[in-house]
Amino acid sequence: MPNAYESMDTATLDETIATLEAEADALKARDLHLDMARGKPSPEQADLSRPMLDVLTSTSDLTDEGVDVANYGCPDGIPSARRLMADVLDVDPADLVVSGSSSLSLMYGVVSHAMTHGVCGGTPWGRQDHVRFLCPSPGYDRHFAITERFGLENVPVPMLADGPDMDEVCRLVEGDPSVKGIWCVPKYSNPTGVTYSDEVVRRFATMRPAAPDFRVFWDNAYVVHDLTQPGDRLLNVFDALAEEGVTDRVYEFASTSKVTFAGSGIACVTASPTDMADLRRSFSFERVCPDKICQLMHARYLIDAAGVHKHMAAQAEVLRPRFQLVEEKLTEGLADLGCASWSHPHGGYFVSLDGPEGSAKAIVSLAADLGVRMTGAGATWPGGDDPRDTNIRIAPSYPSLDELSQALDVLVVCVRLVSARLARSAR
Amino acid sequence: MPNAYESMDTATLDETIATLEAEADALKARDLHLDMARGKPSPEQADLSRPMLDVLTSTSDLTDEGVDVANYGCPDGIPSARRLMADVLDVDPADLVVSGSSSLSLMYGVVSHAMTHGVCGGTPWGRQDHVRFLCPSPGYDRHFAITERFGLENVPVPMLADGPDMDEVCRLVEGDPSVKGIWCVPKYSNPTGVTYSDEVVRRFATMRPAAPDFRVFWDNAYVVHDLTQPGDRLLNVFDALAEEGVTDRVYEFASTSKVTFAGSGIACVTASPTDMADLRRSFSFERVCPDKICQLMHARYLIDAAGVHKHMAAQAEVLRPRFQLVEEKLTEGLADLGCASWSHPHGGYFVSLDGPEGSAKAIVSLAADLGVRMTGAGATWPGGDDPRDTNIRIAPSYPSLDELSQALDVLVVCVRLVSARLARSAR
Repeated sequence: MPNAYESMDTATLDETIATLEAEADALKARDLHLDMARGKPSPEQADLSRPMLDVLTSTSDLTDEGVDVANYGCPDGIPSARRLMADVLDVDPADLVVSGSSSLSLMYGVVSHAMTHGVCGGTPWGRQDHVRFLCPSPGYDRHFAITERFGLENVPVPMLADGPDMDEVCRLVEGDPSVKGIWCVPKYSNPTGVTYSDEVVRRFATMRPAAPDFRVFWDNAYVVHDLTQPGDRLLNVFDALAEEGVTDRVYEFASTSKVTFAGSGIACVTASPTDMADLRRSFSFERVCPDKICQLMHARYLIDAAGVHKHMAAQAEVLRPRFQLVEEKLTEGLADLGCASWSHPHGGYFVSLDGPEGSAKAIVSLAADLGVRMTGAGATWPGGDDPRDTNIRIAPSYPSLDELSQALDVLVVCVRLVSARLARSAR
Repeated sequence: MPNAYESMDTATLDETIATLEAEADALKARDLHLDMARGKPSPEQADLSRPMLDVLTSTSDLTDEGVDVANYGCPDGIPSARRLMADVLDVDPADLVVSGSSSLSLMYGVVSHAMTHGVCGGTPWGRQDHVRFLCPSPGYDRHFAITERFGLENVPVPMLADGPDMDEVCRLVEGDPSVKGIWCVPKYSNPTGVTYSDEVVRRFATMRPAAPDFRVFWDNAYVVHDLTQPGDRLLNVFDALAEEGVTDRVYEFASTSKVTFAGSGIACVTASPTDMADLRRSFSFERVCPDKICQLMHARYLIDAAGVHKHMAAQAEVLRPRFQLVEEKLTEGLADLGCASWSHPHGGYFVSLDGPEGSAKAIVSLAADLGVRMTGAGATWPGGDDPRDTNIRIAPSYPSLDELSQALDVLVVCVRLVSARLARSAR
């Protein structure tokens, strides 16, 4: 669809800009303080997990299949928590460790381990001349920040409708031994909402990496975060690897951070037996054991994958109206103008909006001026550098419906005004 | 006191060895399975913390001074948990971060940070030619394992009755810029039970390190772990630093791992404002926030330092008879023989036993053969290498009094028999 502002005659465009500026002034006068910046669950979602706090009491059995949960020991996590997370990810609990409350922390730990000690005894990445890491973009800023922090070169690769551009990924991975890894959010990708197609998943198995210490960082953050049923179906990457007889290729991560209490969940990592032996040895220096009381509380409350899906269905009831409102407001305010496009995710935490080239920074800045905080423009690209300056991440989960409605009204005016101004300045 | 076995005539010594071997055979026939290996609280101690599991329920207020504990945020830890740990350590909560369940993990993280990013922007230790770390010995094996893991040279320095040999420590720290740190357990040191004297603490302030990125790793693991009242008094190292106008010198660590549930407590690190800014920045890449539900549970249960001391007084009731039994059994079995000496700690988790030169490995091995697992001989020295092979760590907390009594009977026979054999083989 052509951009309506670009098609307008200049007088009409000037008039439109003046009208939009008046609307913006009126919004500013309302002195709003709204936040659509981070993928935080709403208080209503957190409340759904409150019954978990009744699960353990002073009279509870604090053993788990013979493991004394109230004392040191069991560095891989308690049996029931490992079975729970393995059930969610459809992997073997023997190859899975539950540890800590943050999957991001596990990812950081694995990168740090690779930097200082190498992958499975290989040359530490920190002692190799140049190490590159692939970043499907737009993607998750905290992923990119980890590899940037360790001085690796983050290489953006395009995100397409069915996952990363695998031709480009394979060209880089197979042709360049300095490419050591790739960040993936394979289901309801942050921020585009894309779930990788079976073909994309299979190419992670069929690729022939130039570097023996190349690994896929498979952050299955939204594995159970469907907005509607049935949710998107993601091919199990370990099944795809097994079909090809490939091993030691993927680290998969997950957590209950957006299942139970955000930041206070349980996190896990799973990989091949060889990769897990390497990680277990690293963990053995780092701590005596993980927090097993938290694991027991989660395992007794969520029980298994079916229990998690039931819990997440209740979360979806809270989230769905918010995503519907985003879709409605953007359609109502922008669909006829041809100046923006956006995602229509079936799950996850984000809607990804693309404005005209060169618009994102200006839109986010104007929204902030009108009292609506958005994720920083460019944050979804390595180094914060969105080369076309188009992408904006909308996080609709945290605000109330009323706040979200107001915030989206502001966003729509900002997209319109910046698009109109860009059309004007191009003349 | 002279070693009784060395003073015996050979015939008597041979007879004594034969008698002890018969005793050992009799013990072996009992097929014991006892464990005095690790500093684990007993089940009775863990049970003391069970009421903490009633503190949070589905109807609890999940905010802490305005912080929403049930959602992301508050990377430094919740206000009440920071105040609690700052009260325990007598430091400013503004300079303290509560994070995770393991102080060992925080120590590992700080060493890892120094390796890859340097201390406060200095050259990363991993890019310096040779880095040495001082290890007062006997000391804590898991400390030494961290620095060894990162390829640093662990340099043992003697532990004296009032702390590390500070003449030796200062000689090394002041004379050698490759010396970057020292592991300290300043109160009820693991395993000797020594609490550093005021003079020793002050020398950490008055020393003039050759390396600007030298730091003291002050693991105050047993800060509230008194067996009797009043417990040993440890000079606050930050007060000592302030008196000398010295800053950026000490990282102090602590946790509630042996206060509430072992392995499932809350851990903290405190340091100068500059050092904390450096660590906070590092943490910001590592995770969104710590587990705040666990922090809230602890803060509401323990409340403040007084609450912790009250809780620990109940723990001491459980531990004290065990330490008394160690003292009684060793006195009864060994005091008149002059072949071993041991510590008489006022707190902490260990009794440190020294047998004759060249005896420790044989004693621990014989005890294992008789069904009693001890900490590996040498474990209390860097690289597992006790140069005189004398030191054995006794961990009396976990077994029941009855089990402990049996285990100590075994240990006494082992010390006697190995000492007697050594005396015989020296002829």
